[in-house]
Amino acid sequence: MEFEYVSDKSASFLQPTALVSRSEQVSLVEYLFYRLRQLGVCSVHGVPGDFNLAALDYIKPTGLYWVGNSNELNAGYAADGYARIKGISALMTTSGVGELSALNAIAGGYAEKVPIVHIVGTPPTNLQDQNTILHHSLGDGNLRIYASIYEKFTCAQANLRDIARAPILIDETLRKCLWHSRPVYIELPIDIVKIPIPASRLKTAIDLSLPPSEVFGIEQIVVKELLQAIYSASQPLIILDGWVLRYGLEQEADEIVRLTRFPTVTTPFGKGTVNESYPNFCGIYAGAAGSPEFMRWVNGCDLVIRLVPLNADTNTYGFTTLTNRKTTIEIQHSEINIREGTYSKLNVKSVLRETLSRLDPSKLAYNGLCDHLRSLNMTEIEESPSHTEPITQDIFWRYVSRLFCPGDILVTETGTTYAGCCDFALPPQTTVISSALWLSIGYALGACSGAALAQREMVEQGLRMEGRTILFEGDGSFQMTAQAISDIIRNRLNLIIFIINNDGYTIERYINGIGAHYNDIQPWRYLESPNYFGASESDPEYPVFTKQVRTWGELEEVLESKHLKVGEGLIMVEVILGKEDAHPLLKKQMEIIRKQNKRI
Amino acid sequence: MEFEYVSDKSASFLQPTALVSRSEQVSLVEYLFYRLRQLGVCSVHGVPGDFNLAALDYIKPTGLYWVGNSNELNAGYAADGYARIKGISALMTTSGVGELSALNAIAGGYAEKVPIVHIVGTPPTNLQDQNTILHHSLGDGNLRIYASIYEKFTCAQANLRDIARAPILIDETLRKCLWHSRPVYIELPIDIVKIPIPASRLKTAIDLSLPPSEVFGIEQIVVKELLQAIYSASQPLIILDGWVLRYGLEQEADEIVRLTRFPTVTTPFGKGTVNESYPNFCGIYAGAAGSPEFMRWVNGCDLVIRLVPLNADTNTYGFTTLTNRKTTIEIQHSEINIREGTYSKLNVKSVLRETLSRLDPSKLAYNGLCDHLRSLNMTEIEESPSHTEPITQDIFWRYVSRLFCPGDILVTETGTTYAGCCDFALPPQTTVISSALWLSIGYALGACSGAALAQREMVEQGLRMEGRTILFEGDGSFQMTAQAISDIIRNRLNLIIFIINNDGYTIERYINGIGAHYNDIQPWRYLESPNYFGASESDPEYPVFTKQVRTWGELEEVLESKHLKVGEGLIMVEVILGKEDAHPLLKKQMEIIRKQNKRI
Repeated sequence: MEFEYVSDKSASFLQPTALVSRSEQVSLVEYLFYRLRQLGVCSVHGVPGDFNLAALDYIKPTGLYWVGNSNELNAGYAADGYARIKGISALMTTSGVGELSALNAIAGGYAEKVPIVHIVGTPPTNLQDQNTILHHSLGDGNLRIYASIYEKFTCAQANLRDIARAPILIDETLRKCLWHSRPVYIELPIDIVKIPIPASRLKTAIDLSLPPSEVFGIEQIVVKELLQAIYSASQPLIILDGWVLRYGLEQEADEIVRLTRFPTVTTPFGKGTVNESYPNFCGIYAGAAGSPEFMRWVNGCDLVIRLVPLNADTNTYGFTTLTNRKTTIEIQHSEINIREGTYSKLNVKSVLRETLSRLDPSKLAYNGLCDHLRSLNMTEIEESPSHTEPITQDIFWRYVSRLFCPGDILVTETGTTYAGCCDFALPPQTTVISSALWLSIGYALGACSGAALAQREMVEQGLRMEGRTILFEGDGSFQMTAQAISDIIRNRLNLIIFIINNDGYTIERYINGIGAHYNDIQPWRYLESPNYFGASESDPEYPVFTKQVRTWGELEEVLESKHLKVGEGLIMVEVILGKEDAHPLLKKQMEIIRKQNKRI
Repeated sequence: MEFEYVSDKSASFLQPTALVSRSEQVSLVEYLFYRLRQLGVCSVHGVPGDFNLAALDYIKPTGLYWVGNSNELNAGYAADGYARIKGISALMTTSGVGELSALNAIAGGYAEKVPIVHIVGTPPTNLQDQNTILHHSLGDGNLRIYASIYEKFTCAQANLRDIARAPILIDETLRKCLWHSRPVYIELPIDIVKIPIPASRLKTAIDLSLPPSEVFGIEQIVVKELLQAIYSASQPLIILDGWVLRYGLEQEADEIVRLTRFPTVTTPFGKGTVNESYPNFCGIYAGAAGSPEFMRWVNGCDLVIRLVPLNADTNTYGFTTLTNRKTTIEIQHSEINIREGTYSKLNVKSVLRETLSRLDPSKLAYNGLCDHLRSLNMTEIEESPSHTEPITQDIFWRYVSRLFCPGDILVTETGTTYAGCCDFALPPQTTVISSALWLSIGYALGACSGAALAQREMVEQGLRMEGRTILFEGDGSFQMTAQAISDIIRNRLNLIIFIINNDGYTIERYINGIGAHYNDIQPWRYLESPNYFGASESDPEYPVFTKQVRTWGELEEVLESKHLKVGEGLIMVEVILGKEDAHPLLKKQMEIIRKQNKRI
């Protein structure tokens, strides 16, 4: 070990932590791994394979932790979950067979803007140059065909075979990963892993500062326009979306909601981006799938501020939540659309900071009262249903919210839990991980393991308050990526998992074939997962608790149990629900999708 | 149902079975499904997803069987296994998330030449045209980006949105699938699934005849050259490879081995392509990893006939089994290289048939004695090891071969079983499924489910003799695709599975990091798989038997048990082996790979 890691608990993941050099040189792979550590990566997800083994030898010596996933898709999903909490993650696979199995996860990360550094161990450069017919290839001598695929799903690519340029290439690729908040792809040929390179660059952090707005003086113009729009609005609305978290705009989002007191909603993807205890929080805006009165009110707004929106069919309820451009301000990553004009190449964070610092709430035309909107749009918390009645999805998601505490990470799966998530009542400082564009079932089970690992590390480093990771997972989804439970046990991750067992692909039933055999699945014994995947029954360090619930009474009891309150070890609660039971919002949304799919 | 399926049990999969029309029109998806049935596809593998649900409605009505896999990678692997037995298979996934998860399997099918028809349910054509921001997309409006990826891993692609051309396109795509023996990719937009098209084309089978040799008279020249070479050889060798099966040349391979009585070996991939009871069968040729004396003898040959070779590093033991071009005849798919000349665009089957029909064994210069070669190259069957001794890989593979019977399908995984497979003593008419190029761990578990299904169907149809499907699966590999056990149980497939439990990625240990933590895996309770994945303990229709063995005595007992002899239901035998135990051949082969990977 050539370097010593100096821990700095107060540093955010973007602040590099100094490395004290004891040598003038490091190997190429050490350079890469130290850079990852400087950016806050403490663990590397992945699966060993012949072309990455030489690099894996450097994981421990550089102070990284090897997760060792059961398969590459789960590794990719876990890396995604880790990055959504920590702000960056790393994934290692082997060439061809390994990387292709992870592709769905990386594509999802690209779609939903998650900064994952995917490092692929590739064959020796001389064999690449000779177009050798190697294993893990298509047999045509082209050993880099996978790189051409990953170009479509990553925002930057680097092939490290040019040793002299490798350090610059690594830095630039990592910078792009964070700036675009999207996966990058790094090819690391096995024969160059250990080649020594100068260590000097490591002493300077990668420059992660946001580029300034391109046109001189433009920020002042935009700030003025924004303030004007905000001051003059009499029927305003703020819609927060999920990418607020990705671009580090949580603080700005919070301030604008707090200072303006404008009615604020989120999209499904934006769930968790607003403090729901604020009086101006008005729930999820579900457009045509939600309250018609509320939709009418939204369409009558004279100002709608959309903060980093994801305008996909699913997140906009079939595009019915989109608002009139003439009254809309759309704040993007580096662009702001104010009504019908567009300002691009902006430092948006700087624009927002300036706007907020100058915002004088006394100048607002808006009267600040939105109680009637809350009651128009938000489900009231139900009376406790009868203890002996079976659990139903219309109430379940509000009901289970009593479990949530500040600091918790809530992970929800595609399927019926997608709609359920919208119904959660969130305490402040909870984090939600959900998918709203890619929507690959099985994602959440993999992602929750990465999220729980990131949470553990950040709590230990004093970067995050204590909390639990709680997953809501469908039965069909669970089957896709079940071996994530093995990864969870192997890494002693604390997790609470609710298996929403409704005997098949219920979300598909609502699109086509409510009783069709193809929407059925093989019934598993889900609660035997800890045992099957090798948890020890008598490990005091890693307790296991499982419980099946069918009624509200059984659910209440389990929610009150010490196991769930503390959330230590692996906790699995199987919630038995009706095969055709779904949240009313989901039923309406699936009706929209059904119509979308039909032409004849 | 507009058509009635007329079963023709004597037909091979390539002979279309007539459909009796009761109508002038069928829907587009019916056309596709009936064509698949005509080619011998009886079951469709896959996972439902919103964009393929409308097509799934037609699975049962067209007489097909829906397998319903737990995830797409397993579905893809299973389709691969099914195609290796039946000669063609079908896979259905949904756009984006579904198809990308199956990509590794399709890439493997492309590499190893397996005819899989991958049908993807895609979004409605109007939304495709409008570049709509739909779910399962990257959010950039490009809903066909996946098609551009599949171009690299399939030999033909068809987007069926042009209704008028769709039937011709379907026929042409399926023809290419079989001719190239590689996967094809079909996009089926959800809104056009039910559009009626004329049924008339269905009454004529797709033309699957091999194209004639392009140059008139060329076949006679090649035949003459081949016969001359065969007659004059005094030290000849035949090397059979796996693609013999793919191009339907089993019969020709068998005849040339039988008529010439030339010493015959196979590659690892070619295991099972020769009747091992023939006196001129001399085992696997392992080049530098095998017997040096035998290698010297091979290098002194004046004629080496390689039948459809796969010349990858793994299959040639680091290219050490390649022979001098001056003495080699390489017979490819549509090309024959005779020494240093090449004849291309040939109907190879026709050339071989003509050669064999004219071959007069009395004219052979070769004396026909090769006992000394057998003893040089082949492991003798060991004496029975002591009952109380632990099982070791040096003997295990020969030992377990006593279980095999004619009609059996043996499936072997990448890893230590790869080398083990080479050591099998095969009875005639056994089929081996193994990978020698793509080598994606976890493949075999998925593939065996498809193979077992194809076997069941073919036995029922009288197209194949009775037999069992027997899988040899590593523990690390098992974890990749464990949910295949769910698919096996769901479809009541008869399978014997040996879990080769050596506590980690032993094959990787021999490449790098013999004791490294990254080569360790989480220990599972493998034998609880039937229970975990939902097999009923008391289903007389589908019995379950599990057993763990550590010693030769325990192994012998289980091999003699009725469960394994009959092979009904799900049988799992966990073989506990040393963490660092591997077949000597594998150790030598990994040494070659290790050298290959190191430059510095």
